[in-house]
Amino acid sequence: MRARVLIRPKAGILDPQGQAVERALPALGFAGVEHVHVGRLVELDVRDAAELDQICQKLLSNPLIEEYEIQLLDGQNGAPGS
Amino acid sequence: MRARVLIRPKAGILDPQGQAVERALPALGFAGVEHVHVGRLVELDVRDAAELDQICQKLLSNPLIEEYEIQLLDGQNGAPGS
Repeated sequence: MRARVLIRPKAGILDPQGQAVERALPALGFAGVEHVHVGRLVELDVRDAAELDQICQKLLSNPLIEEYEIQLLDGQNGAPGS
Repeated sequence: MRARVLIRPKAGILDPQGQAVERALPALGFAGVEHVHVGRLVELDVRDAAELDQICQKLLSNPLIEEYEIQLLDGQNGAPGS
């Protein structure tokens, strides 16, 4: 089963990449862009979707500073993680 | 309008992060995980969604080695980018 994991900095955690993008855009001529957050995207084929939560916690994300969202790519909706 | 941009290595481009994850998982006790790809996730509020394509090409992605997909987060579907 194909799955997608979206990993973002938790609310309140510094997001320097997002800040850099937000500051660069006006200089490139794009106004009106706000609240930019940069995270990671992981897409993978997994045999047992029940393992995804553990995979996210143990390897893909840093639960101290990041939150993750798992999306199963066969029509089901994503569920927010820790 | 809230938008999400998914940025991935193009097919055929080396994905060392994905390979690292794929190799690490069996050692952590997770079998049956394949075709892992790691990319970037950018979420942003944009006033004019028509600018997103240019923003992706000029700042968020490297069109030589990455492809991007724009998702508008108000119920519309994403459209694959360059």
